[in-house]
Amino acid sequence: MSEADERRLAWVYLSRVVQGPCAALSALIESVGVVEAARAVRERALPESLRGPTEQRRDSYCAAGDLETMRRIGGRVVTPDDPEWPAWRMLGLAQLEAGRDQDGAVPLVLWVRGSRSLLESTERALAVVGARCSTGYGDRVTGEIAGDLAARGWTIVSGAAFGIDAMAHRAALAVGGVTIAVLACGVDRPYPAQHDRLLAEIADVGLVVSEYPPGTVARKHQFLARNRVIAALSDGVLVVEAGLRSGARNTVKWARRMGRPALATPGPVTSAASVGCHRMIRDGEALLVTQACEVIDEAGPLRLSIPGSPPTVTGQAEALTGIRATVYAALPGVGARLPAALAAQSGLPLPEVRAALTELELFGLVGVGENGWHRITSGRATR
Amino acid sequence: MSEADERRLAWVYLSRVVQGPCAALSALIESVGVVEAARAVRERALPESLRGPTEQRRDSYCAAGDLETMRRIGGRVVTPDDPEWPAWRMLGLAQLEAGRDQDGAVPLVLWVRGSRSLLESTERALAVVGARCSTGYGDRVTGEIAGDLAARGWTIVSGAAFGIDAMAHRAALAVGGVTIAVLACGVDRPYPAQHDRLLAEIADVGLVVSEYPPGTVARKHQFLARNRVIAALSDGVLVVEAGLRSGARNTVKWARRMGRPALATPGPVTSAASVGCHRMIRDGEALLVTQACEVIDEAGPLRLSIPGSPPTVTGQAEALTGIRATVYAALPGVGARLPAALAAQSGLPLPEVRAALTELELFGLVGVGENGWHRITSGRATR
Repeated sequence: MSEADERRLAWVYLSRVVQGPCAALSALIESVGVVEAARAVRERALPESLRGPTEQRRDSYCAAGDLETMRRIGGRVVTPDDPEWPAWRMLGLAQLEAGRDQDGAVPLVLWVRGSRSLLESTERALAVVGARCSTGYGDRVTGEIAGDLAARGWTIVSGAAFGIDAMAHRAALAVGGVTIAVLACGVDRPYPAQHDRLLAEIADVGLVVSEYPPGTVARKHQFLARNRVIAALSDGVLVVEAGLRSGARNTVKWARRMGRPALATPGPVTSAASVGCHRMIRDGEALLVTQACEVIDEAGPLRLSIPGSPPTVTGQAEALTGIRATVYAALPGVGARLPAALAAQSGLPLPEVRAALTELELFGLVGVGENGWHRITSGRATR
Repeated sequence: MSEADERRLAWVYLSRVVQGPCAALSALIESVGVVEAARAVRERALPESLRGPTEQRRDSYCAAGDLETMRRIGGRVVTPDDPEWPAWRMLGLAQLEAGRDQDGAVPLVLWVRGSRSLLESTERALAVVGARCSTGYGDRVTGEIAGDLAARGWTIVSGAAFGIDAMAHRAALAVGGVTIAVLACGVDRPYPAQHDRLLAEIADVGLVVSEYPPGTVARKHQFLARNRVIAALSDGVLVVEAGLRSGARNTVKWARRMGRPALATPGPVTSAASVGCHRMIRDGEALLVTQACEVIDEAGPLRLSIPGSPPTVTGQAEALTGIRATVYAALPGVGARLPAALAAQSGLPLPEVRAALTELELFGLVGVGENGWHRITSGRATR
């Protein structure tokens, strides 16, 4: 067995063992590597914190079977080893994980149905989520905004639920755009069952994604974890309609924790389906938007802003190594460059350039404006 | 002729001469008194800055006739000499005037139709304004919010225009509440003419108010000046529906300049009549509200916050004289008191206590919270 195959089986095994985010396991993998981590779990040679989360399924040796199941349904597993792993998309969660947020861990792997590259599909993406009990008004607004964005090349990410979610996917499909459904169950289990056909259509031209291995049944807590993946894969989250207790507010919470724009469309104040949106706007949790161009204003050119203490520039630039140093060096002293130009100049692949830029932005060393990325010579990165 | 009569005729004369806000004239009155100022205008013994604004009508000696006209229509003129002059309401404009804002001057007098006290009617007041071309939705929301507030004892201030304005007045009338129409023309000239009957009803149970003398025709620039009076008489401004260029946004601008809450209700994003509201919320010019209780949250217990440089406390308290000193002395060193308690304790009338508190707040010496007014021992008044 090749080392690559061995690693892949280790990822798959671990994904099935923990079924969902597990910061302690991510930390172990980070420290000893995935193959070694898988062995430690199998042999129960674990720190106390990992015994509980791995106890129930550590004897599930069905990695090969899982991969076979995926092949059968035209799917695959995407691991952090794969070129299509959207590493830069995961930086928001990586920050939460680094902040010892147990729930905010980076997914171990993503199970995927559909032939598109996960990395390319999420290059410019907006999550559009909302009430299951949407109104005709909400459906119409979702259709207009999601359709406009999809037609302009934005990927629409949502959760395939009834109501706004389904409308968002359908609007993207209708204009020949790309859409990604993130499920709280295995990608081989259409959920809700009535969206069997919709999910098949999404897999045809877009992607159906889950961090849960095939066969996993949707359970309540998994929806909250799923919402974090929706937020992670997107430049921002738009809520079109939401009741007071809507799950969409949870997705917004994830976006905000990752420093990504949270947006909401208003509606009639007489409509219960807009109460959650109005509350979020009123409380400053979401920005009011009414059309696609306003969404682009807010979530447009990769506008990550990261919470936490402001990093200082001094000494950081000199301490850079590897790809980050190369990309930083490729930036001019004055003026800005687009990622494509930096890739051409440095000889690095575009996704790596982009990931490095985002990391450099986290460090407060570079910023992004209308003309591309630029060095920051003092202070911190501005939004 | 008594001195009081002489002063009244002087106010009335000057009101007719300048017809609208005139900061330079206000400054002259402040410095030499109203009778002397009237004589200076009549005799053209004026600084350069006042010759232009007074030139056209300084020979209009019709003060007695104006007062007779008002008597005939059941009205009166209210001058700063009158007990019902809402001095504390005018503090916002006084601040703008002090900041040499030519357009933001305190009205010289207010011409009034209706038997209620202007001071008492504006004790707790909300301006509700909006689109002339309102929708059924906007009318309904206006009716609900303005009706709820009027039923709870809030005076509804508006401009008697078609659409939202008229709906706001009618909602207050419908629940037996108090409403004030502020006109951009003389109060003897119903404007718009179709609202003749509505204005008569308002005058019956509320007030019709204008800073323009009887007979004055509505001209465009007068509407902008009128909007500042609407904002000045109110604890906050609520816009229910507004197109992109609505005059309601001008009223909001006045409220914001006076540090008073600007509120807007959202509507369907598909409705042109809500575009201005959404824009104001989006741009942070207005807070989103959906119902009366949210309005009260924002505009509720006299929450003035004044723009400008923060005043310091040191020495100011010691320098107080007159009513201000009495009211400040009545406040406990620790804890808060309601205005009524302070009035009882100090033996001063409630309106004077309130006016003094607001002035003390301007100085940064007192603040207001849920339990009433309290001394501020360092820094400045907080909102």
